[in-house]
Amino acid sequence: MSNTQPVPQQAATSAACGTSRIVGCRFSLHPMTNDFVSLIKGAIEAVDTSKVWRYTDDVSTCVRGREAHVFDVVKAMVLHTSKTGAHVAFNATFSIGCPGDSEGDTYMAEDDIRLNEPGSIELRQYVSSQFALYPMGDPDYMATIMAQVGLAEEHGTLKKGVHYASGLHGDIHDVFTTLEEAFKQAQEGKSSHIVMTVNMSINSPSHQEEAH
Amino acid sequence: MSNTQPVPQQAATSAACGTSRIVGCRFSLHPMTNDFVSLIKGAIEAVDTSKVWRYTDDVSTCVRGREAHVFDVVKAMVLHTSKTGAHVAFNATFSIGCPGDSEGDTYMAEDDIRLNEPGSIELRQYVSSQFALYPMGDPDYMATIMAQVGLAEEHGTLKKGVHYASGLHGDIHDVFTTLEEAFKQAQEGKSSHIVMTVNMSINSPSHQEEAH
Ligand SMILES: [Ca+2]
Repeated sequence: MSNTQPVPQQAATSAACGTSRIVGCRFSLHPMTNDFVSLIKGAIEAVDTSKVWRYTDDVSTCVRGREAHVFDVVKAMVLHTSKTGAHVAFNATFSIGCPGDSEGDTYMAEDDIRLNEPGSIELRQYVSSQFALYPMGDPDYMATIMAQVGLAEEHGTLKKGVHYASGLHGDIHDVFTTLEEAFKQAQEGKSSHIVMTVNMSINSPSHQEEAH
Repeated sequence: MSNTQPVPQQAATSAACGTSRIVGCRFSLHPMTNDFVSLIKGAIEAVDTSKVWRYTDDVSTCVRGREAHVFDVVKAMVLHTSKTGAHVAFNATFSIGCPGDSEGDTYMAEDDIRLNEPGSIELRQYVSSQFALYPMGDPDYMATIMAQVGLAEEHGTLKKGVHYASGLHGDIHDVFTTLEEAFKQAQEGKSSHIVMTVNMSINSPSHQEEAH
């Protein structure tokens, strides 16, 4: 499935089920500054994306590969854009098990070593976010959702529930650990196709109290 | 359900099913300019939100009420932020039938007149966007998704399929008509809980060819 082909949403053919457990993340980063282009270019240069399939269009960037590397690359992109101190908004849709999703399967052979963690782990960054889980095709999807909200509470990152999402906040590493774990554990439910959306606000003027 | 309460994701109690057909949209607008605060404040002042419930937190804004007014308010917010010429990113999650979603039911008594359409309809704005539909709890959700991608093709707004979404572009009024219609028609499938995510890029430097 190529981005230049007019394929329908989420599948080249709705009949074919993807057999690989490739994880994808379609995301966008929005630095609210006149220098937005150089900030994003700087982050792209700072992040090693060699273990993921990657494609950027005029609306968003899509990375795909093994779960660990997708989360590693995305967290590093957010960190390297925010470390400039700019107010940054981040929006992402993570997906696994999407019918027909197989392009990039070669990346599934990569090893476990997260290429960007050494450069990320020293950086501290308060983030406030909202996430929602969508386990597709499962009549009992609410049980899966509630279990993962419980996980966030255990992690100490749950801020509060809001309409259509759950608030997560804290240091970016803790929030990403919750997101990755929730996404992973949701796959143990009845649904084989899990979608997770995330919105983050970083370096917001309204975060001064919590960040310092 | 109040935003100040620690309610779990998407529901105060997972057992209770909302009986009203209240529509909600959680969205954020990101003008990529140093003046982002004044641009957003200007849009808020220009848009009449009296027919919808509204709450803004540090990550996003949520509006809820009758379908027509939710789409009317959201389109007007996007238009009034973009008409300044700034590069703006818009992210939204529309939802109907979310279990437990009843707060704001009083707004369901509003009439059909869209308060912001007179001020919106004269404005022209090219937008490029990506949308995804998530009909929850339905094993045949792919059929609903494919039908709505077909609708976008009929409308002439379909750009192309990408991983995890479908591209829509054209004048903002045409794109919003497709989104509202796809969201409405998806409700005619087996799922009573429909989620639709939308990401838009407006006044992007890379849109020069298509916009002029
Ligand atoms: Ca966004």
